[in-house]
Amino acid sequence: MSSSLHCSDDPAPSSMNVEAVLHMKAGLGETSYAKNSTLQKKSMDTVKSLVTESARDVYALLRPERFTLADLGCSSGTNALGMVEEVVRSVSDLCRGSPPPEFSVLLNDLPTNDFNTIFSRLPEFTGKLKADAGAGADPMVFLSGVPGSFYGRLFPGRSVHFVCSFSSLHWLSQVPPGLLDDMNGPVNKGKMFISSTSPPAVAAAYSRQFRRDFSLFLRSRAAEVVAGGQMVLAMLGREDERHADRNMTLLWDLLSESFAALVLQGMVEQGKVDAYDAPFYAPSIREIEEEVRREGSFRMGYARAYEANLSGSGDARRDGRTVSMAVRAIQESMLGHHFGTEIIDALFAKYTELVTAAMEREDVKSVQIGVVLTRL
Amino acid sequence: MSSSLHCSDDPAPSSMNVEAVLHMKAGLGETSYAKNSTLQKKSMDTVKSLVTESARDVYALLRPERFTLADLGCSSGTNALGMVEEVVRSVSDLCRGSPPPEFSVLLNDLPTNDFNTIFSRLPEFTGKLKADAGAGADPMVFLSGVPGSFYGRLFPGRSVHFVCSFSSLHWLSQVPPGLLDDMNGPVNKGKMFISSTSPPAVAAAYSRQFRRDFSLFLRSRAAEVVAGGQMVLAMLGREDERHADRNMTLLWDLLSESFAALVLQGMVEQGKVDAYDAPFYAPSIREIEEEVRREGSFRMGYARAYEANLSGSGDARRDGRTVSMAVRAIQESMLGHHFGTEIIDALFAKYTELVTAAMEREDVKSVQIGVVLTRL
Repeated sequence: MSSSLHCSDDPAPSSMNVEAVLHMKAGLGETSYAKNSTLQKKSMDTVKSLVTESARDVYALLRPERFTLADLGCSSGTNALGMVEEVVRSVSDLCRGSPPPEFSVLLNDLPTNDFNTIFSRLPEFTGKLKADAGAGADPMVFLSGVPGSFYGRLFPGRSVHFVCSFSSLHWLSQVPPGLLDDMNGPVNKGKMFISSTSPPAVAAAYSRQFRRDFSLFLRSRAAEVVAGGQMVLAMLGREDERHADRNMTLLWDLLSESFAALVLQGMVEQGKVDAYDAPFYAPSIREIEEEVRREGSFRMGYARAYEANLSGSGDARRDGRTVSMAVRAIQESMLGHHFGTEIIDALFAKYTELVTAAMEREDVKSVQIGVVLTRL
Repeated sequence: MSSSLHCSDDPAPSSMNVEAVLHMKAGLGETSYAKNSTLQKKSMDTVKSLVTESARDVYALLRPERFTLADLGCSSGTNALGMVEEVVRSVSDLCRGSPPPEFSVLLNDLPTNDFNTIFSRLPEFTGKLKADAGAGADPMVFLSGVPGSFYGRLFPGRSVHFVCSFSSLHWLSQVPPGLLDDMNGPVNKGKMFISSTSPPAVAAAYSRQFRRDFSLFLRSRAAEVVAGGQMVLAMLGREDERHADRNMTLLWDLLSESFAALVLQGMVEQGKVDAYDAPFYAPSIREIEEEVRREGSFRMGYARAYEANLSGSGDARRDGRTVSMAVRAIQESMLGHHFGTEIIDALFAKYTELVTAAMEREDVKSVQIGVVLTRL
């Protein structure tokens, strides 16, 4: 560990352009995100009632002719359309007797996201909405894809009534600066995220980057969301202020261990592992709350941390594979970019093995944070 | 030729689901639409001044805070973003001194279109807009992709100020019904579109399908475009009422001839060729005008037919290849669906040869129709 940490905010010289690289694995194949997003779906089910209640509240308050909702970080999976369906059904139910509003649905993700896969499912989706409506009035749903980073403006001013975002805001806009020492050497050697052995400057750098990004997120949405509009945000997070909480760090530590095994086999250079840090952060509710208060445009009305048992089925092999495939679908673009795509299969074979072994030993959990913000 | 033509409007039993099949060749490769859309660009240059003038007129009249423009049938080429750029620049110029509006740009095409390729160019596009703005106020441009058929609703009610559509409205929603005789046999044998040897019922069936589709297009846009809003529509068309005009039919006839050559070589069955009809129609100005009047929501303020010489460079080999590659990028999805993808290379090798030979003999022309409609 270096004793003199260089904590300037210059971006690391070798830093990855997250916006150009990060995207869920495209298409519908075996290792695609669409086929490996059951974990995300599970966490979305937890916040489903939060979403439908919040959307109904907004509609009941504002009664717009056109109800505009945005899903930020929609990825290419079915999860995005599933949640849209819930909102449309729930708001339409509220209108019994009177005609429902027109729904304008804005599906956002980075420009490298596989929008084609979402769009190819559209005929099936609209068919389902029609069937659900049955004999009643068919709600008109207008769907569009909005490419761009949510750490910046995405939509015209005061044009959105309801925003939701799932499993996305834990991704930072960049690898935090401040992870190099005075000699430009990596300070978080062998690890790719905050770990129990990381020097304190690592957590500080990550926390600082999260605050900046989340603040920019809030400022951007403040311009776009109408007064009385709401946002439901769910992301991986921490139950308390400790950074090296085992729930949070275990899966990252196992990924580092998988790399260590590849280094031993001569498949990956140690230097490459030392230089890699993930653009990820799991905030606490307090950190979120502080930024909301500082930015000042939203009121935080609800906040909760949910613990999910990833090894809940009792079948460690199956659960281990599910978790490993999910992590792969999400991180493959970034890992492939840094380490080369040829190591990915070997890496995740090892990772599946380690995650399965961990699940045989202990419950492997993840913590999801859900908050509801109202535009003042 | 069958003497008793069955002209019922039942769709042909083997008819292609155009919405699910038609799309420009994806990606950025050698045979992609993005690399083979110079013909479309040429025809767009002709109507460019029409577009910028019309967009400025609408803005000057309505002065909305948010100017919403839609490009219908944007495909995956650079043409779509090029036209958007012109409109943004032209309207922003009008605002000198006062801040320009926010621009909401809706890029529409069928769900099978390659939106990913458009979106991957977005960072470059916004960079260019920023550079153009120079020291002045940077116009805010919000771009989204809207998947769906423009023969139906695409956008919320009264939400769009300006619509343009290029080289798209000559594609029908389906292969016209009424192309089978009493015995369910094809009436337009050996041909894939109206030809000088086609029985009169063929042109009648095509014309009827165009009127239906265009009428549905107008009704859909009437709900979406605000009063005072305008549409600039450009498509392949005819200079007069004759259906078998050589300008119109030559390229189709050469495609039929290319298939005849493949039949002789035993690569394609004659029956497959007889059963294939393109979902295409080139209307006259009068046909467009009649549907506009009948629908009643728009006033037609400008209409012109432009003749373009496709063999204009004097180099028949080069021009022949350009035209052949363009036709391939546009029609490959439909031809591959009906005949199998394995014949495509051979087909277009023959087609390039025939188009080049035609260009050595005569000027090969196409006719583009441009109309401007104002929402009453």
